Amino acid sequence: MADPVHSADASAPIVLSRGVPPREAIPSETLARIAKAVVSRNAEAAFQYAPLGGFLGAPGLRRRLGAFHGANPDGIFVSNGSLQVLDLVAALLLSDEQRTVLVERPTYDRSIRIFERHGGRIVGVPLRNDGPDLDLMATHLKERSTAFIYLIPDFQNPSGVTASLSKRRRILELAHEHDVPVVEDIPYRALRFAGEAPPLFRAIAGDADVVTIGSLSKVLCPGVRIGYAITNPSVASRLAELAENTYLSPAPLCQALAEESFAQGLVDENIVRVRDLLRPRCAAATACARSLLGDRLLAEPEGGYFLSAVFDVAWEEREFIASARDAGVALTPGSAFFPPGEAPLSGQIFVRLPFHAVMPEAFEAAVRRLVALAERSNGGRSVHR
Amino acid sequence: MADPVHSADASAPIVLSRGVPPREAIPSETLARIAKAVVSRNAEAAFQYAPLGGFLGAPGLRRRLGAFHGANPDGIFVSNGSLQVLDLVAALLLSDEQRTVLVERPTYDRSIRIFERHGGRIVGVPLRNDGPDLDLMATHLKERSTAFIYLIPDFQNPSGVTASLSKRRRILELAHEHDVPVVEDIPYRALRFAGEAPPLFRAIAGDADVVTIGSLSKVLCPGVRIGYAITNPSVASRLAELAENTYLSPAPLCQALAEESFAQGLVDENIVRVRDLLRPRCAAATACARSLLGDRLLAEPEGGYFLSAVFDVAWEEREFIASARDAGVALTPGSAFFPPGEAPLSGQIFVRLPFHAVMPEAFEAAVRRLVALAERSNGGRSVHR
Repeated sequence: MADPVHSADASAPIVLSRGVPPREAIPSETLARIAKAVVSRNAEAAFQYAPLGGFLGAPGLRRRLGAFHGANPDGIFVSNGSLQVLDLVAALLLSDEQRTVLVERPTYDRSIRIFERHGGRIVGVPLRNDGPDLDLMATHLKERSTAFIYLIPDFQNPSGVTASLSKRRRILELAHEHDVPVVEDIPYRALRFAGEAPPLFRAIAGDADVVTIGSLSKVLCPGVRIGYAITNPSVASRLAELAENTYLSPAPLCQALAEESFAQGLVDENIVRVRDLLRPRCAAATACARSLLGDRLLAEPEGGYFLSAVFDVAWEEREFIASARDAGVALTPGSAFFPPGEAPLSGQIFVRLPFHAVMPEAFEAAVRRLVALAERSNGGRSVHR
Repeated sequence: MADPVHSADASAPIVLSRGVPPREAIPSETLARIAKAVVSRNAEAAFQYAPLGGFLGAPGLRRRLGAFHGANPDGIFVSNGSLQVLDLVAALLLSDEQRTVLVERPTYDRSIRIFERHGGRIVGVPLRNDGPDLDLMATHLKERSTAFIYLIPDFQNPSGVTASLSKRRRILELAHEHDVPVVEDIPYRALRFAGEAPPLFRAIAGDADVVTIGSLSKVLCPGVRIGYAITNPSVASRLAELAENTYLSPAPLCQALAEESFAQGLVDENIVRVRDLLRPRCAAATACARSLLGDRLLAEPEGGYFLSAVFDVAWEEREFIASARDAGVALTPGSAFFPPGEAPLSGQIFVRLPFHAVMPEAFEAAVRRLVALAERSNGGRSVHR
């Protein structure tokens, strides 16, 4: 099969259905070299259990993560990828009394499923191009006993939206008022191609009522399966206790590889490299989407992996996805990104448009095909409002 | 600090509190060599996400595990260590209607905690020297709606007991009669130093209602964090779906390292090596315990890591553990191995005696000190019944 990342060949499907780093964003050769050095130097520790008391994660890696984020290593907990961190955070924060989780609508589909599995009642707060709708968030917080607010504040998956500083401040005020913790998930944050980053929730709030969830998947590589929480030491140690009673610890080898990648400057270097790699893809995709989709575009991101749009489509989503597939465009069903019962009304279809692993020509070809399909579904009327 | 494994120095504590492989049982140098070959040959796959559909585990590793166990790879699910497998199995099998888990009494403390976390009501079936008490198991099965029976049938942790073939057959009959699945956890099974292994539950039953949980921690190394379930393909794929929605997949690098260790014959070779290493420790420890403890010894194991005994001790367990520590013997509190509310009556203390990481002289010194302490607690009366 032709490589969909590098080809705009009309016979190969254009894959807009995954959030996986393109292979050119992963420094595999350097990682291989570092892995060899790690096992040469420290084979005994790499292949043994984590030492007793090592359930927060390897101390050396936690120090590196602390330095990277300007955070206290005692409040850092390392796990098998950030999804596993989120799973443990949900286990910790959800209770029979507090079952509501406020999320952005749309939000990451796997997060929704994790909250559901832990008994969460997921309530979506509509996302505007500068973050969640604050009036609706305030209403929900008044009406429900909320376990936590879950946000992907930077270059959100799936929408591409970044929450503004003023919204971050106001969300923290609301959270404080209702005594509800904020969980911010920041896998894409370091991949900013332009503009200035608003501060993290944890930086605005102090870290008392914030759990920040980070990941090395998009900045170094997914294969090490290293995710982490930055929070206060007491929450971190409760997460570590849960982890010990679930899987003991992540593989020491993976943690040592991540630590040494920080030590050798590979993480910082790779972030610069990936930014340079994705910046033109993001710019071209945004320009293309602006011109072809107009105000159907939800946001113009300055980083991350995703654009997104709402199409007026007369067909059911399933039919649209199947027709797109027939037209050579692989999509994720957008309804998966909505809490149960909150998917868009019929007549509208939410579409995530990942630009990170698609060359500009292929991206444009895909969007043109989707626009044509939407028009066909509407009997030929333009999708521009 | 002196190495407690290799020293009988009275000033160093004798550590009888962990089930961690001694360093000489882990082929670290060979593993390092294999890890280097794996990252040289296949860096791209090692550092990327598992491929879509790869949530059962890496196909190559599952084929190797299938060949190792004489099992269908389609029914094998690979996870981050066997505790994580058990966690997912518990999530799958426990429901609001079926909350009872029958376990051997005593049993592995971390398993108890996992079942509790998933809402399980843990009921212990007393362990005899040839397996659980079948009359009591039958009674419990009649009286309670049981989610599953959890057993560590070979060289059980903590007792050292192996279930006899006739008990295995009868347990399967009972399980079948009550339509209750059997979960057999077999981390030590390959470490048999003498005698003939009774067949696995899954071999007797067919694999319809059995989940076998295996681990590479004791036969290769703990650091790769590779555990797995052998079951039918439908249960395996439900476990994979749960895993995907919890942590996606284990690290591809760890799975590739395990696969290549099988391919190069390292697993088989290391099992022979570890058996040869531990056989004399087991023989000496058993002879010593037989002579010093008599019928307080629960079983004379032909493999694994553990002996165990019940001491008549007038003190509370906490006081006995503290006194043992003062006498230079580090113990795990034996009550942790009992389901809530089922710890031995006061006057008796269950003690796990791991022989696998202690030289015979140190083991004997430790048991002598424990016997002396027990006698002291009883005002000088012999601990022999």
